[in-house]
Amino acid sequence: MSEETFDVIIVGAGALGVATAYYMQQNNPDKKILLVERTLAAGQANTAMSAAAVRNMFSSSTNQILTDTSIKCFEYIQNELGHDLLFEKTGYLWLLSKEQFEHESVQLWMKRMEKSGIHYKVYNKDELKKLIPSLNVNFAGDEEAELMNLQEVCYGLYGGDCGVLDPTRLVEYYFEEFKKITHVKPRFGVNVQKLLLEAEPKLDLPGEPYVWQQKKIKGVVTNKGTFRADVTVLATGAWANELLDPVGINSMTKAKKRQLFVLHAEDNPKMVELLDTKGFNEINCIPFTILPSAGVYFRPQLQERGYWIGCGDKFGRAYEYIQTDEMMVPESAYYENSMYPVLSKYFPAFEGARPVNSWAGGYCYSPDSIPFVYMECGVLVVNGASGSGIMKADALARIADALYRGEPEAELFGGKKVSSKMLSIKDRNVEIESVVI
Amino acid sequence: MSEETFDVIIVGAGALGVATAYYMQQNNPDKKILLVERTLAAGQANTAMSAAAVRNMFSSSTNQILTDTSIKCFEYIQNELGHDLLFEKTGYLWLLSKEQFEHESVQLWMKRMEKSGIHYKVYNKDELKKLIPSLNVNFAGDEEAELMNLQEVCYGLYGGDCGVLDPTRLVEYYFEEFKKITHVKPRFGVNVQKLLLEAEPKLDLPGEPYVWQQKKIKGVVTNKGTFRADVTVLATGAWANELLDPVGINSMTKAKKRQLFVLHAEDNPKMVELLDTKGFNEINCIPFTILPSAGVYFRPQLQERGYWIGCGDKFGRAYEYIQTDEMMVPESAYYENSMYPVLSKYFPAFEGARPVNSWAGGYCYSPDSIPFVYMECGVLVVNGASGSGIMKADALARIADALYRGEPEAELFGGKKVSSKMLSIKDRNVEIESVVI
Repeated sequence: MSEETFDVIIVGAGALGVATAYYMQQNNPDKKILLVERTLAAGQANTAMSAAAVRNMFSSSTNQILTDTSIKCFEYIQNELGHDLLFEKTGYLWLLSKEQFEHESVQLWMKRMEKSGIHYKVYNKDELKKLIPSLNVNFAGDEEAELMNLQEVCYGLYGGDCGVLDPTRLVEYYFEEFKKITHVKPRFGVNVQKLLLEAEPKLDLPGEPYVWQQKKIKGVVTNKGTFRADVTVLATGAWANELLDPVGINSMTKAKKRQLFVLHAEDNPKMVELLDTKGFNEINCIPFTILPSAGVYFRPQLQERGYWIGCGDKFGRAYEYIQTDEMMVPESAYYENSMYPVLSKYFPAFEGARPVNSWAGGYCYSPDSIPFVYMECGVLVVNGASGSGIMKADALARIADALYRGEPEAELFGGKKVSSKMLSIKDRNVEIESVVI
Repeated sequence: MSEETFDVIIVGAGALGVATAYYMQQNNPDKKILLVERTLAAGQANTAMSAAAVRNMFSSSTNQILTDTSIKCFEYIQNELGHDLLFEKTGYLWLLSKEQFEHESVQLWMKRMEKSGIHYKVYNKDELKKLIPSLNVNFAGDEEAELMNLQEVCYGLYGGDCGVLDPTRLVEYYFEEFKKITHVKPRFGVNVQKLLLEAEPKLDLPGEPYVWQQKKIKGVVTNKGTFRADVTVLATGAWANELLDPVGINSMTKAKKRQLFVLHAEDNPKMVELLDTKGFNEINCIPFTILPSAGVYFRPQLQERGYWIGCGDKFGRAYEYIQTDEMMVPESAYYENSMYPVLSKYFPAFEGARPVNSWAGGYCYSPDSIPFVYMECGVLVVNGASGSGIMKADALARIADALYRGEPEAELFGGKKVSSKMLSIKDRNVEIESVVI
């Protein structure tokens, strides 16, 4: 098999991989940076499966700064650089029961947002009913709702600096900018089989490396030959364990399946009316909305005049060691039995709505729902975004680049500086994120 | 298959399982508690494979209190209750290079021990040479040592409240005490195949449970039938992922192989002399000793007049999703090529020493090297002790019992109280442990 040598190899051309490639090449113009991807195009694996909603409304100050600066960068890319990301400020709306709203975790979340200057607004039940007349806020006497453990809507928590975008366009932006400046053409259809662990110096003894030898990851072994590099960046999301575990680096992450179902509004006046809800945002559409029960949520999709329905199922949905093929297959029974009954109970406008399309992919969860960016023995790991990687992509890529350059601090969009080790395993000092959808 | 019902099922009769069984039965005398174990006797899986050294010298205040109180309890069991654990206060001796000793992590470690009242002593090179004349503290001109990246010993960090014990005797103590008070005979050869996840109430619809249903773990499915219980305790160490992941609870832990090699001193006067080193402890033996390089360590084994040699290999030794059969097989080449060259370089007394016995097992690592004890959806998880479960067994078992009883605090041996949620995932607030061997 052939062998080639580069300065940096970046594995994975999803949102995190292309953004990292771009900043690393921009700030290290002389380095030979090879971007490799298993599929045949950038951003076509889990990035394309995302609901691609972006929010700065997190409970941890870490996720707040990662998303707030990234979202502002996306606005800049769209408004100042003229690259249309289909970024629309629909806002995020959490519908909460009285008990949920008063829970200490939600109170702490609001307090921390205030402290960080994240804008949000609280709506009471009457205000919500006025803005969304078709919202069902009264389950009194509804035996089905009781059987389904549905909690009545009492409050709405709304963030106006949140919205939705097109993940493919975002990837396209970073990827095209990277291509303009890279010395090495990105390669697709490259399957990384293992990390190349070698002693340095090599003694050519049987069974090397021994415990007393210095060792380092020197690149990757792939189906297209061996690629050597000083630093190997893993932006492989839910596949990281497969590469890191065998060399004794614990990625700390696990995969979980997520599914989206597309509903079109066009022939249904009630669904059109709901889509065109006024009063929340300047574009006069219903916000990205999270229901109080069962983890069900929806995002408006304005280009196709419809909705994407998702569900953040927690207990009961398996974690996987690495992403499986089955995780790419949506289950129609899941929409029918689990999501639809909840959705149509809170929003009767959806009664009878059947999906016209669906897809599925994998989230990559970290233990504290804060991403990882760390450098260890020649590997730079960028992963564990726990379903919110797109909205953190710009900040994570800048931190990865700062770590690569050995800078103690990374400058995020807008000029704010953070420690480049803040997302590492060893020097981790973050608040546990509680607002995971 | 048969079905039986209990109040509590405890899966795993290692050190953590039997201690938990004992405290839960003692404090809940009316409850029917079934202890099940896959192997044919208590403490014969990874517990028996341990180096069974115990230390309170950790860098995190959490691990300090868990071990300090457990070790004091072991002393009480041996000295006051008269159950001989073969607990001997050999002390722990870290041999450190100048660079290591001055590193901020070691300075912080010492500072935190002082703050917690953990006793330790620093020896300089001359003092060490006087106590251990055969210790090699000078690698000048030694090309092999240079090739092997061995760091010269310059300091010793010694903790006199640490020691070694017999893990089988420790398990025997808790297990026998549990058997005196339990209403249900423990069962061996029981292989738990999966956790029993059920909706409550069950609606007997196809595809249950749906996301909007309440659900709970209602027991376990095993090769000996289904056992139902209100609470299922998992003290399964490196096997936890196999049971937790499928139901959507992330155990956060991973397994790693560890091996021990036994050397007998009897026919080797130099090894005898080293074993009988005076001046560190009252029993006049060499302490449990950690070398500065490559993670190699040894413990004295006084009953058989010898040593157990181990190695905390980090980068380069694979993490596994769950323990594999291969992890139970020691590799003689590993002793010869990796451990022996290091060991004999610092301690020439070991020159030519060949193992008379060896074994291997699995560590269960948590991300912060602090154990987990948490209750979620009917499962009480006690794991992730990262290779120091035996020395924390008493404290972890008391915390698990307090959680089961819904007590906000657990009283540890000696009367100190800690939050019973301090080792949970959601309310975790611990310092990352840096002193992992």
